[in-house]
Amino acid sequence: MRGLGTRTVLYQQNVAASLGLYNNDLKSVDILRETGPITAGELSKITGLATGSVTALIDRLEKVGYVRRANDPNDRRRVILVPEYEYKEEVGNTYRPLHQSMHELASSYTDEDLDLITQFIGKASAILEEQIKQLNVKKSKSSS
Amino acid sequence: MRGLGTRTVLYQQNVAASLGLYNNDLKSVDILRETGPITAGELSKITGLATGSVTALIDRLEKVGYVRRANDPNDRRRVILVPEYEYKEEVGNTYRPLHQSMHELASSYTDEDLDLITQFIGKASAILEEQIKQLNVKKSKSSS
Repeated sequence: MRGLGTRTVLYQQNVAASLGLYNNDLKSVDILRETGPITAGELSKITGLATGSVTALIDRLEKVGYVRRANDPNDRRRVILVPEYEYKEEVGNTYRPLHQSMHELASSYTDEDLDLITQFIGKASAILEEQIKQLNVKKSKSSS
Repeated sequence: MRGLGTRTVLYQQNVAASLGLYNNDLKSVDILRETGPITAGELSKITGLATGSVTALIDRLEKVGYVRRANDPNDRRRVILVPEYEYKEEVGNTYRPLHQSMHELASSYTDEDLDLITQFIGKASAILEEQIKQLNVKKSKSSS
């Protein structure tokens, strides 16, 4: 898991660099793609980035067309961030070789094995999410 | 896998921040721990960082005591980077809750299932390593 973690982080840094983005910026684009439209405050909570950093980040991403700010259709006073990710051809092109190789790897397993692996990955993700929360609790405690 | 990747990167960024390190810096410490002593040139190749960035990074890490430069005992003209990682109590303390939770998760599987999962993770890591190499080939082509 450690080895996979190291390579995941490096891969992501290299993808960000090849797209001309900061690593944090690309990560936020990925999060938005996963969550769908959320507010800047929610993005700040998920990433653990300070509100000011998130504002600057959204400005950068909006400028290059990866996200756009929009009024929440359910509550016009709320501003939400809408991912424009899928429309970016260069993003798709950059990730394509990875997706292809991962797809090939997955195809070499039986459905039953894949269920087991997927379940494990889901649980490991949940653990990481919980740990990120814990680190942020510690951070806000030590800064107050 | 995407969800796990996103959370891995976020977790790592939060750990780095809680240790007062840049994310790239902590990653290099992790790589050194995995590879054992290597040269700055080798670290540059693995991370995809430019030589100048690696030099600055090593300076920072040496200052805070995470690595030290030493002469290669097998070739006195070569300077190698020695990880001092394991001696840092705060690093151990920061990662401990994650390791504990992952250990608990692993304990809930049979040896046979764990073999399958470990094998999958190893293959996924190898794919990521190959993809990082490919991205770097593209990068050096486009910059020359």
